[in-house]
Amino acid sequence: MKINGTSYRSVWVDPEDGWSVRIFDQTRLPWSVDILQLTTWEAAAHAIRSMQVRGAPLIGAVAAYGVALAMRADPTSLDRVLPALNATRPTAINLRWALDRQRAALHNLPVEARAEAAYAEAAAIADDDAETCQRIGENGLPLLAEVAARKGKVNVLTHCNAGWLATVDWGTALAPIYMAHDAGHDVHVWVDETRPRNQGAALTAFELGAHGVPHTVIADNAGGHLMQHGDVDLCIVGTDRVTRQGDVANKIGTYLKALAARDNGIPFWVALPHSTLDWRVRDGVAEIPIEERSGAEVTELTGRTADGRIETVRVVAEGSAAANPAFDVTPARLVTGLITERGRCEASEAGLAAMYPEFAGQ
Amino acid sequence: MKINGTSYRSVWVDPEDGWSVRIFDQTRLPWSVDILQLTTWEAAAHAIRSMQVRGAPLIGAVAAYGVALAMRADPTSLDRVLPALNATRPTAINLRWALDRQRAALHNLPVEARAEAAYAEAAAIADDDAETCQRIGENGLPLLAEVAARKGKVNVLTHCNAGWLATVDWGTALAPIYMAHDAGHDVHVWVDETRPRNQGAALTAFELGAHGVPHTVIADNAGGHLMQHGDVDLCIVGTDRVTRQGDVANKIGTYLKALAARDNGIPFWVALPHSTLDWRVRDGVAEIPIEERSGAEVTELTGRTADGRIETVRVVAEGSAAANPAFDVTPARLVTGLITERGRCEASEAGLAAMYPEFAGQ
Repeated sequence: MKINGTSYRSVWVDPEDGWSVRIFDQTRLPWSVDILQLTTWEAAAHAIRSMQVRGAPLIGAVAAYGVALAMRADPTSLDRVLPALNATRPTAINLRWALDRQRAALHNLPVEARAEAAYAEAAAIADDDAETCQRIGENGLPLLAEVAARKGKVNVLTHCNAGWLATVDWGTALAPIYMAHDAGHDVHVWVDETRPRNQGAALTAFELGAHGVPHTVIADNAGGHLMQHGDVDLCIVGTDRVTRQGDVANKIGTYLKALAARDNGIPFWVALPHSTLDWRVRDGVAEIPIEERSGAEVTELTGRTADGRIETVRVVAEGSAAANPAFDVTPARLVTGLITERGRCEASEAGLAAMYPEFAGQ
Repeated sequence: MKINGTSYRSVWVDPEDGWSVRIFDQTRLPWSVDILQLTTWEAAAHAIRSMQVRGAPLIGAVAAYGVALAMRADPTSLDRVLPALNATRPTAINLRWALDRQRAALHNLPVEARAEAAYAEAAAIADDDAETCQRIGENGLPLLAEVAARKGKVNVLTHCNAGWLATVDWGTALAPIYMAHDAGHDVHVWVDETRPRNQGAALTAFELGAHGVPHTVIADNAGGHLMQHGDVDLCIVGTDRVTRQGDVANKIGTYLKALAARDNGIPFWVALPHSTLDWRVRDGVAEIPIEERSGAEVTELTGRTADGRIETVRVVAEGSAAANPAFDVTPARLVTGLITERGRCEASEAGLAAMYPEFAGQ
């Protein structure tokens, strides 16, 4: 997608040197569009851990490029690097999926062939993701088009950032929105600010603004009220992991919006690529490990002053501690359906098995 | 209640001059404990409008003292001052209630008697509120004591600030918590930060910390997850208006927590004084006007830097607009019960009519 008219992906190999990896430092967005150069797998691991890159599909792609950087430096390091990269974030299933794909591609190769193969596999993962997201957009578009045809406009609520900055291109939850907007529908997006890290206020608002999609940022608290008053036609969110029975792990607070959507008869859709499915897990609330991040993400907040300085301020009373679970799980019963690259399906084992028969036998 | 060992109320007449009104500038808390002197009714109106004072009961008391300041300056101004004070905040019913009480006390008095009577009525409103809150605490205490007796500890979740800073003393939702803590129960409070104005992170955390009550601040998004995992025993919130059928207007986001409590079988209690009842309104979602505040409260945020400066930073991408509905309405069906100064009752017309028979005939 575009920033100031220039097309970008969220991760790419530097065209000058042909091997180093480029990303946006998403901790600096929206205040500063800084492109980082990753030259070691440790830098890729740091980028994931520190959330310079975030979003389940992008994490997978950057981890895959991290393996490529490691193979270029030391092709015997595969068994050491894979678990280290896997440990950078505990919740996103794409991370393990991308690393499993690299392991399968590399472990039987002679060491001298691993670097080239690892770059090829990482590029394939990135290309696959961009195509997958485009198809998610095409499969979600009719949901918005139907409302727009009926009402002349469509109000979508989204949580966190599941846009192109969270994937390689297009995004998952935002892909249908971009396509509906580009198709000329009158789309307006309610953007949950998404405390504590404000990915909605910072990244989703930035993305949508850069692409010209009308949107309004709201406190995470406001969505229920808007739904009560008919101001939301549908919700679309992304996800970090979907279980075999259709439970959805996503950014903390997603569950509350799903409850409000259900209470007000508003469709609640979850957009995902196949790589987000975790067929090994059934009960999401009981089984998915939830990352507990630093309380400082709650107590402190970074933004830009009126005169352009970037400042971090404490917003919690001195001496008070904070807890920071980063994800929650929305039970499948609250999910209207899933939007995948193959089409839309029910959030259930039957729905998923019909859409992904290759998993169903497992 | 106490700050650094000194007892305060949240509004009082200056003991030195005997007529000016003192408040804490709550927009400066928790960073700075600034006591303001109000000498005109316009200053009282400004204090309410700018949220130097907030919380439905405290707004009522300060408005009543505003009438007293006006009567001291110009006792013929009653009919002009009452509607002006009433217009400062649209949602809190206590504001109208306190002004109605001043009107009843003053309008038949000769102008020369109005100032003294207005101060007496304002003092009575403040004293009544402190006593009312103490009784709310006594009536809520058994809910916490029961859990503590059974489990050895009790985890309470609260939203916004319904503590002594929101009332004249004790608070509403926090009164039972203070009493349970003082009675030696092992109480821990999950404090919703309460975006966009962060009354939880700033005021509730400050209050609880100053009193020594164990607490943890969380993003508003986190409560549902904590409830799913058994980390919340009950919720207690305050309210700005309760309708005849038991619908509850409170700080934006309350409705989402009530939905999560219901989904997880956790009691959701609302603490209120009689002055918060609005017998003239039945359907809260349809009928209660919801104040839409400035979007700047969402896009900008004030806190303290590590080196002690108070800075305001923008947290939303440049060019993105924000919406800011300040309250929402929780339907009575989601409320386990009401904690009042007379006891606990069902959130329903029958429950309220039994508790307040003097309203029931209206």
